[in-house]
Amino acid sequence: MNNENMNKNNAVNGDAINKERTKHRGIRVNQRPNSVYKRKSKKTNEVNQEKIKIIPLGGLEQIGMNITAFEYGDSIMVVDCGMAFPEDDMLGIDMVIPDVTYLEENLDRVKGFVITHGHEDHIGALPYVLQKINVPVYATKLTMGIIEGKLEEHNITKSVKRKVVKYGQTVTLGDFKVEFIRTNHSIVDAAALAIYSPAGVIVHTGDFKIDYTPVFGDAIDLARFGELGKKGVLALMCDSTNVLRPGFTMSEKTVGVRFDHIFAENIEKRIIVATFASNVDRVQQIINSACKYNRKAVIEGRSMINVINKAQELGYINIPDGTLIDIDQLKNYPDNQIVLITTGSQGESMAALSRMAADVHKKVSISDNDTIVFSSTPIPGNEKAVSNVINELTRKGAEVIFQDTHVSGHACQEEIKLIYTLVKPQFAIPVHGEYRHLKAHGQLATEVGVKPENVCIMYSGDVLEIGETGAKVVDKVQAGEVLVDGLGVGDVGNIVLRDRQNLAENGIIIVVMTLEKYTSQLLSGPDIVTRGFVYVRESENLIEEAREVVFDTVRECLEKKVSDWGKIKMVVKDSLSDFLWKKMKRRPMILPIIMEVE
Amino acid sequence: MNNENMNKNNAVNGDAINKERTKHRGIRVNQRPNSVYKRKSKKTNEVNQEKIKIIPLGGLEQIGMNITAFEYGDSIMVVDCGMAFPEDDMLGIDMVIPDVTYLEENLDRVKGFVITHGHEDHIGALPYVLQKINVPVYATKLTMGIIEGKLEEHNITKSVKRKVVKYGQTVTLGDFKVEFIRTNHSIVDAAALAIYSPAGVIVHTGDFKIDYTPVFGDAIDLARFGELGKKGVLALMCDSTNVLRPGFTMSEKTVGVRFDHIFAENIEKRIIVATFASNVDRVQQIINSACKYNRKAVIEGRSMINVINKAQELGYINIPDGTLIDIDQLKNYPDNQIVLITTGSQGESMAALSRMAADVHKKVSISDNDTIVFSSTPIPGNEKAVSNVINELTRKGAEVIFQDTHVSGHACQEEIKLIYTLVKPQFAIPVHGEYRHLKAHGQLATEVGVKPENVCIMYSGDVLEIGETGAKVVDKVQAGEVLVDGLGVGDVGNIVLRDRQNLAENGIIIVVMTLEKYTSQLLSGPDIVTRGFVYVRESENLIEEAREVVFDTVRECLEKKVSDWGKIKMVVKDSLSDFLWKKMKRRPMILPIIMEVE
Repeated sequence: MNNENMNKNNAVNGDAINKERTKHRGIRVNQRPNSVYKRKSKKTNEVNQEKIKIIPLGGLEQIGMNITAFEYGDSIMVVDCGMAFPEDDMLGIDMVIPDVTYLEENLDRVKGFVITHGHEDHIGALPYVLQKINVPVYATKLTMGIIEGKLEEHNITKSVKRKVVKYGQTVTLGDFKVEFIRTNHSIVDAAALAIYSPAGVIVHTGDFKIDYTPVFGDAIDLARFGELGKKGVLALMCDSTNVLRPGFTMSEKTVGVRFDHIFAENIEKRIIVATFASNVDRVQQIINSACKYNRKAVIEGRSMINVINKAQELGYINIPDGTLIDIDQLKNYPDNQIVLITTGSQGESMAALSRMAADVHKKVSISDNDTIVFSSTPIPGNEKAVSNVINELTRKGAEVIFQDTHVSGHACQEEIKLIYTLVKPQFAIPVHGEYRHLKAHGQLATEVGVKPENVCIMYSGDVLEIGETGAKVVDKVQAGEVLVDGLGVGDVGNIVLRDRQNLAENGIIIVVMTLEKYTSQLLSGPDIVTRGFVYVRESENLIEEAREVVFDTVRECLEKKVSDWGKIKMVVKDSLSDFLWKKMKRRPMILPIIMEVE
Repeated sequence: MNNENMNKNNAVNGDAINKERTKHRGIRVNQRPNSVYKRKSKKTNEVNQEKIKIIPLGGLEQIGMNITAFEYGDSIMVVDCGMAFPEDDMLGIDMVIPDVTYLEENLDRVKGFVITHGHEDHIGALPYVLQKINVPVYATKLTMGIIEGKLEEHNITKSVKRKVVKYGQTVTLGDFKVEFIRTNHSIVDAAALAIYSPAGVIVHTGDFKIDYTPVFGDAIDLARFGELGKKGVLALMCDSTNVLRPGFTMSEKTVGVRFDHIFAENIEKRIIVATFASNVDRVQQIINSACKYNRKAVIEGRSMINVINKAQELGYINIPDGTLIDIDQLKNYPDNQIVLITTGSQGESMAALSRMAADVHKKVSISDNDTIVFSSTPIPGNEKAVSNVINELTRKGAEVIFQDTHVSGHACQEEIKLIYTLVKPQFAIPVHGEYRHLKAHGQLATEVGVKPENVCIMYSGDVLEIGETGAKVVDKVQAGEVLVDGLGVGDVGNIVLRDRQNLAENGIIIVVMTLEKYTSQLLSGPDIVTRGFVYVRESENLIEEAREVVFDTVRECLEKKVSDWGKIKMVVKDSLSDFLWKKMKRRPMILPIIMEVE
């Protein structure tokens, strides 16, 4: 009783508890001494049989990089293992993966990864993480097919245990049992999870929408959500992506109807449709329209070809024989017998559509006989890139269509309310969203019956201890972003990024000179070399003036018998920096180098 | 007759004429030899009395940097002189201004600048351009007030002739007469122009919307547009910003009603409204609500304070005595008696609201007793920054409102059609927009009566010769973007930007060594210094390996008696580059420096 009271008093209220934690947001852990992050992370507490621990290692405070650990006694299971795209200030970074130090430190207890669906923000980090934490992976058939493609690229297929799970099946991971429940999403074979533990049942929706008329397979298993709700659910972890949007997300099938209209209205033209590489249902619907209007279909873009091949192989898409032709056969058909399905709907510079727009695609040229459909919306941050591609296509005479050609894969407010109404969770733990999404989601949860004090807004690294008697953040473990640059994983962090930012904005000035070791005589230089600063050929006077400033400074130092070369460097840097700021209001990086000759 | 026929055959059809020109898009002219751009720009042709020349030097292919020259005989007049914000790939650039070489080359003929309104994309380049082309500036009162603020900042107020013009007045610039016509826009005192020349009348709308119930002053002078149309208008140059949006832009007053509701619903809280610094009417409406609900108003953000001071001084805003208080007085009032009006609605990192969100504002702290209204929409490219600010504010407990709190200042499709229907121009020359906007605008113009062959889609630098008998692009003059970085105007161009891009993505490796001049003996080094590449303290092995690669390469060169140091540098660069690519799939900039000692 006493325990219950204590827990109630400490019930999670997102705001109060998390105020202290805002400063940890967006931490990049590499390049900092590990000790800062090492907390009481090795299992410190004795097992509390009434509690389960939920530890998100990513996916909060951001869209992407979803990964959450669930811990009960000696068992840890992990839901999803996604990557994120680099933020604008992560210059030169290819992708971002979660810091899984906590899992590494507790390797013997980790029972497996349970994956909800095959999107990059849920599976993209797997090939990296599995190399450190080699435990079994559980997923539905298509999801596993896509994961296997990734493992092959990293040559680790053989070493990873995999288990394909069907909707309705339950798998055991230590003290946990996990049931896969059918949902709808913008990729087929998406699953919600019912996570059973002695401390209660947690329902995790994964990414989902409610589609009563899906293109492939059945509608989301709402009845199962209802059954679970009747029996009693401790907590619901529900997708927040579209929580700011009122209403109901339209069915994927509405896009198919629109495609039919576009095909009917563009009977003489070539049709090009750009969409997300992994949206198998979307491609199915384009294929359907192609068949109806007697067109051959070409699929272009490596990632889309991979996914569609996998979907065909596993029976998730139905392409009648003879419909699909190779891109090399394009020339054998007139424009009005072709639909080209392509990647590049986000304006990605290297994607197929962008290369067509820039006239550097080897096999497709855009003309005024093209109607180009953007079957997508720009992901925040990509608006300008998409706009530029549309301008280039329009300039080549093509007609560009983007109205009503896309529906979201995520649930809007009314769908989220429906899930809460069925599941009736004691606690709401909003997931998949930035803070403003999680906050709005919490508000919405209270409108459909969750007690305000039972809304848990978490931060990555929080350890939430939750049971029927209460929920409380009891600890914080190491969590953060690991940056991937080329083959380097984690070797670029804050210091390197700060340098890149400075180089990007102002360029670099290198001042180099050779000094005699014992006499401190200036043997050569100072020479000035710049990159990214000014166009040297047109700024010879400026560079010469700068050289004189440096020369005077060095001479003064040497006359004063300064023999600490670190000090000489510092003085050179300061005097040159002052000179340039006064002269041009710029602060390039200044790098003095002294070579020593005996 | 023959002449007429010829012109008709050559009538401007945007697509055909402009195909050749796409490659000129986005040229940055600095750092390229001027000769490339010098065309037959000095007045080459004899005066064609039936034709006027229209030469946009910016503002096409982009939103921003509006500037267009009109030329008849010995007279050149220029409409607007705006700046643009740097594109994402213009690293470190502060702003972009138009290349006005053509005007400099024809200085003796330039009669003046006619300015349509006081937004940065129409006046921002004036202080730079007037220093080269010192001719009179014509504008309405508030517009001139804002321009004068800029001239003061650049210390050139005294040297620039200025003439304030009222709606309905006509000014003479050489062979041109220009009438100012009242319009509505998101800044007061906006004007359309009727440009009279012996070759015909051209109507230029400037930026505009149709507001039947404006906050300040009267509705757009639709009757005058109709009168001009009755008399005959050669060409209409009309705002394309919102041409992709169907319908009609809502009146500014609808936002005032929404403010009243927000004030009524947040009676106990402090209200903070972020909006565009120059939107005087918006500030007026916030002040109106403040008065109604007995709140004091604080204005924060340097640019907004400047504009509002100017508007007050000139009588464009009505703030009852005692309503406005200084930010230092904030502490003397309870939250529910305050409305704070601030800049930062675009998430600009240095603006007042962003500083409040980041907890670094000296005088304002955000709490859960704040309701924060974004009275704006994100300009394309700013979505993520705005989102980040909203997250930070939400995290501090504030409520953030952005629904129905803004209306556009630009005409939508039905308004544009209305203007065409009144003006009935022979030719349509869409302005202010990216290519896709101009193209859609051309389509819309044909729907309301302009002949398809009379739609002129132009590119910056095009010289359009236009008269009743036809329109044709007859020449191309130097036009492009001049980049401003600190005090430097035009000293950063493509080569510097390419270096910055490379430095930003991969960092730099400097390899430095000292060689004896005559014996080619290695006296010191090779040393390796890196910035923005890897975190050196954790990559000592890698750097040592790289040093060995360089050392071996240099030794080999010296053993082979290579005495061309350029060649040694090249070989060092190649071998190190290969090593790093194989090892880490990265391509940092490699800069070998050889110091020479005798």
